[in-house]
Amino acid sequence: MLARITAPSRAWTPTSLFSRLVSSRCASSSREGAAYTQKRTFTERDVETFASVTGDMNPIHDARANASAWTGGKLREPAVHGMLVASAFGAALARWKPGAVYASQELKFRAPTRVGEEMEIEIALIRQSGTRARYETTARRVKCGTVCVDGVALAILPEE
Amino acid sequence: MLARITAPSRAWTPTSLFSRLVSSRCASSSREGAAYTQKRTFTERDVETFASVTGDMNPIHDARANASAWTGGKLREPAVHGMLVASAFGAALARWKPGAVYASQELKFRAPTRVGEEMEIEIALIRQSGTRARYETTARRVKCGTVCVDGVALAILPEE
Repeated sequence: MLARITAPSRAWTPTSLFSRLVSSRCASSSREGAAYTQKRTFTERDVETFASVTGDMNPIHDARANASAWTGGKLREPAVHGMLVASAFGAALARWKPGAVYASQELKFRAPTRVGEEMEIEIALIRQSGTRARYETTARRVKCGTVCVDGVALAILPEE
Repeated sequence: MLARITAPSRAWTPTSLFSRLVSSRCASSSREGAAYTQKRTFTERDVETFASVTGDMNPIHDARANASAWTGGKLREPAVHGMLVASAFGAALARWKPGAVYASQELKFRAPTRVGEEMEIEIALIRQSGTRARYETTARRVKCGTVCVDGVALAILPEE
């Protein structure tokens, strides 16, 4: 049975650092199957900001470019950067376990994430041994359940 | 022998979308061992912007927080988000192969990346079959060569 902790559903907008750090620890958060979920809707401004700070100016993310022309029809419209979606895993982990340090992350980009569609970000504990914890990480469309990005993360947790 | 393409060494600062999209294709870019490198220095502002857009407010990235206290001494000072460093792989790929679509990315976060240290971002072709290409991705400190983030990426390339 999953011990599920759900953060409020809302689009995130830039605010000052750490104002949104939510302490969501609970006694069951180190049990196998424990999961943390939160909702996230990526805006065009998020995509532009991410492109600007990472330097990833791939035209497949540009609302003004024709994504279809660049990808031979593989994308019909611009996609949110997969790494922006994947970064939401780290964000969720940081809310659940502030101080956690990423050791590894495997990512599969299975379907494009669109601007404006509500996504559910989930991290679920596979196994914890001491301060080392392995999580299944999933980003899926709330509307239809399609998994857009998933993978496995390994993190070093702070001592409790 | 590596066919190496090197982009100019400079810190990136936010500019308008796509103004820095550089077409760096060359005939040898689909040969095994072909590599694309670029330099990147992450600033405190980059870290704050990334935290804001991704929602990753982990105190280990906050210059005002004591990273050591949060991580039990595992980090002595704040680290650049690993996913921000890793996003530079996508940025490099987008410069080399505009229109490329990420299929997967494995990442190992081996050492913290510090604000202000110059990093070399490298993507090197392991194998290409049709439009599917596998790359070794590495972010290392220019000063001492330490690998901070590495892994393997699979991308679907645009038709040439």
